[in-house]
Amino acid sequence: MRSIAIGLLGAGNVGLGVLRILAQNADAIEARLGARVEVAGVLVRDPAKPRPVPVSADLLTTDPMRILGDPSVRVVVELIGGIEPARTLVLDAVRRGKHVVTANKALLATCGREIFEAASKAGVSVYFEGSVAGGVPILRTLREGLASDRIEGLCGIVNGTCNFVLDAMTRHGLDYAAAVAEAQGQGYAEADPSLDVGGADAAQKLALLCLVSFGARVDPATIPTEGITRIRAFDIATADRLGYVIKLLALAHTDGDRLYARVHPAMVPKESVFAGVHGPFNAVLVHSVALGRSLYYGLGAGMMPTGMAVVSDVVEVCRNVLAFADAGPPPEAFATVRDVAPAPADDLETENYLCVHVPNVPGVLGRVASCLGRHGVSIKRMNQDTPGPGEPIDMVILTERVSNARLRAALSEVDAGNDVLRPTDRIRIVDPDAVGAAP
Amino acid sequence: MRSIAIGLLGAGNVGLGVLRILAQNADAIEARLGARVEVAGVLVRDPAKPRPVPVSADLLTTDPMRILGDPSVRVVVELIGGIEPARTLVLDAVRRGKHVVTANKALLATCGREIFEAASKAGVSVYFEGSVAGGVPILRTLREGLASDRIEGLCGIVNGTCNFVLDAMTRHGLDYAAAVAEAQGQGYAEADPSLDVGGADAAQKLALLCLVSFGARVDPATIPTEGITRIRAFDIATADRLGYVIKLLALAHTDGDRLYARVHPAMVPKESVFAGVHGPFNAVLVHSVALGRSLYYGLGAGMMPTGMAVVSDVVEVCRNVLAFADAGPPPEAFATVRDVAPAPADDLETENYLCVHVPNVPGVLGRVASCLGRHGVSIKRMNQDTPGPGEPIDMVILTERVSNARLRAALSEVDAGNDVLRPTDRIRIVDPDAVGAAP
Repeated sequence: MRSIAIGLLGAGNVGLGVLRILAQNADAIEARLGARVEVAGVLVRDPAKPRPVPVSADLLTTDPMRILGDPSVRVVVELIGGIEPARTLVLDAVRRGKHVVTANKALLATCGREIFEAASKAGVSVYFEGSVAGGVPILRTLREGLASDRIEGLCGIVNGTCNFVLDAMTRHGLDYAAAVAEAQGQGYAEADPSLDVGGADAAQKLALLCLVSFGARVDPATIPTEGITRIRAFDIATADRLGYVIKLLALAHTDGDRLYARVHPAMVPKESVFAGVHGPFNAVLVHSVALGRSLYYGLGAGMMPTGMAVVSDVVEVCRNVLAFADAGPPPEAFATVRDVAPAPADDLETENYLCVHVPNVPGVLGRVASCLGRHGVSIKRMNQDTPGPGEPIDMVILTERVSNARLRAALSEVDAGNDVLRPTDRIRIVDPDAVGAAP
Repeated sequence: MRSIAIGLLGAGNVGLGVLRILAQNADAIEARLGARVEVAGVLVRDPAKPRPVPVSADLLTTDPMRILGDPSVRVVVELIGGIEPARTLVLDAVRRGKHVVTANKALLATCGREIFEAASKAGVSVYFEGSVAGGVPILRTLREGLASDRIEGLCGIVNGTCNFVLDAMTRHGLDYAAAVAEAQGQGYAEADPSLDVGGADAAQKLALLCLVSFGARVDPATIPTEGITRIRAFDIATADRLGYVIKLLALAHTDGDRLYARVHPAMVPKESVFAGVHGPFNAVLVHSVALGRSLYYGLGAGMMPTGMAVVSDVVEVCRNVLAFADAGPPPEAFATVRDVAPAPADDLETENYLCVHVPNVPGVLGRVASCLGRHGVSIKRMNQDTPGPGEPIDMVILTERVSNARLRAALSEVDAGNDVLRPTDRIRIVDPDAVGAAP
């Protein structure tokens, strides 16, 4: 029986999950591959540290060269996380002709170009299923199941922290701060949750989805990104009354040569499949020419889900090693990658929920409505509850479809009025089923 | 550049979709495979028939031996449908050492054992992604993405006709007959829809899902199956009021050595992701040890979705041909298949919706409630609208969790009463998120 040697860099939570899955499923993997996967070494900081999953002591090493310098090792699995030393080790592995599997989204978002170019030059693959939506096999599906299709657009719930927070606000009536505290208490949010709730994590994942879906290398920093920190219990309750739930969406679609990408909260219809994505779950809806809409849903993170994603990448890379062993470089899914700056979202149109904060005085509604009208923003529906005397008003307005640019101009004039207490809240209304679909 | 020859048996709707996808995506497929896929022949009944997708005349043949007898053809794609001549041709192809791709669910459900055994003996693969849930890459995901996981249970909406009908009843308030007519008008139901609405089609697909998920060969005829023909607009409206939607579910889970499988309509909570599966869409929710819950959703049928599924199978089989060319037989995913009779569902417990049809006379409620009580069926909730004088009553009862056997005994006694107008309707209440999950 043939065998393929792999090396692990890092044996934290996900690394131990990978070792456990490889051990428990050795026979199934061998049956699929026609070869055994042998772990040749595991790089750790402290070999003596107790580990919940037993690892043979003679595999543990503190010397990366024991793995990178071993010519029998064909695949290096990077699970250190963060930028350095992960970047240096991955580049070194690639230059030595080793394939790489990683779940390190931050590394790929920051140094993806350098790493993919080095891999392309060396004729090796870099797989990263675990870096987007944890155990949801979305990259594999985009790469394989949809390889013979053309993807037009995608819409995802890709940040489990934000989804947990919004879901807790929706289902338990919590306000934002309480929901974040709840997420932290349950281990679904960091002590400093800003990367998640600010949307940056979702933008990094969206950039990787754009790479695989459209062959477009997008700098996550150029993706218009809005987090969930301004969402209030009032917005959630109003959405509910109007037949919507609020979700943080990562959206991308192509229009001719242009790629639109953006991350923002949105009201999605309750009858949408997205409304059923609760707690820390992730989901990605893909629109493609032949297949139409398809959706992939599962846990976005965790030792075993992410470990599974990493192992399925390892098996896939090993199959390529066997298939293409002496027939030249492996097929490179990103052979035609190009750098793309997302198109300005100014001309994108949506319906919108607006919440204008004004004092309870006569004439305010008229001024706001006239101002919107002057800018060509049509009002579909308006509602304001009767406040107590002297109490401020949360004036809810639903607009017809209007471009970002037009609405921004209108709101800038609305908010410039003396009678507006604080900037108007705006949440786009999005039907995920329609995103990026051919008209 | 290497190339692999394939032959098509049949050029109907799906066959033309396959040819179109192969032609339009030849370069992408070549990049993935490291080899070109060449169509060596297409078996048709009438080569002169006009076809909406142009097919080179010298590929068309009415002689199956031109494909089966060609030693260069490594993969045969069967898209004739039905049992014969598909069965004979597939068996012949397999015995000649050719791999087979088919979307023929009826063939596999009826002759699967014979075909898989012949394939195993000949050392070739039979792939059938297109036979379950059309374009949803569920079999691929079960086989690959979850190859290193253990599947505990699954729950699917796998019949697009039934889902369309129930969805039309739910969203447009149609009664059953009008919804079926609507489905027929839109091409989502056959003139004789009985295979679909009776549940047999879903049972065939469930049998294939059990094969791939559990290595269990189940005769679809042994799967307890109940269709949607008895669902009334009243049930749909009551479900809505109670916070549920009615879906036809195909369910399977393991408990030790036992495999439970069944097809029946169920009330699922509105907040479930299944509630968002509308119209002709399909979805399969999988529970596995490492990954937890994951769900795959897309169009269940159609020229291009099913064509995509077939092409992705072709690419997969070709990769195996290349990988294992001279290294013995390909890995056989069903090497450990065993014959399994589904365990009797008598001891399975669910909550239930009951609708008892009785005349508006005193004492009836008491008799029904006492009868349920005697059998240990606890009532969770009861409701009856006030009918007009002399009008019959639809008495709605929600039960606590109770086994099938116990409820059946109770209902048999209820329905034996002189005061019951017709058999009591019973719809199980199922939370798909909990099916087959570890407790």
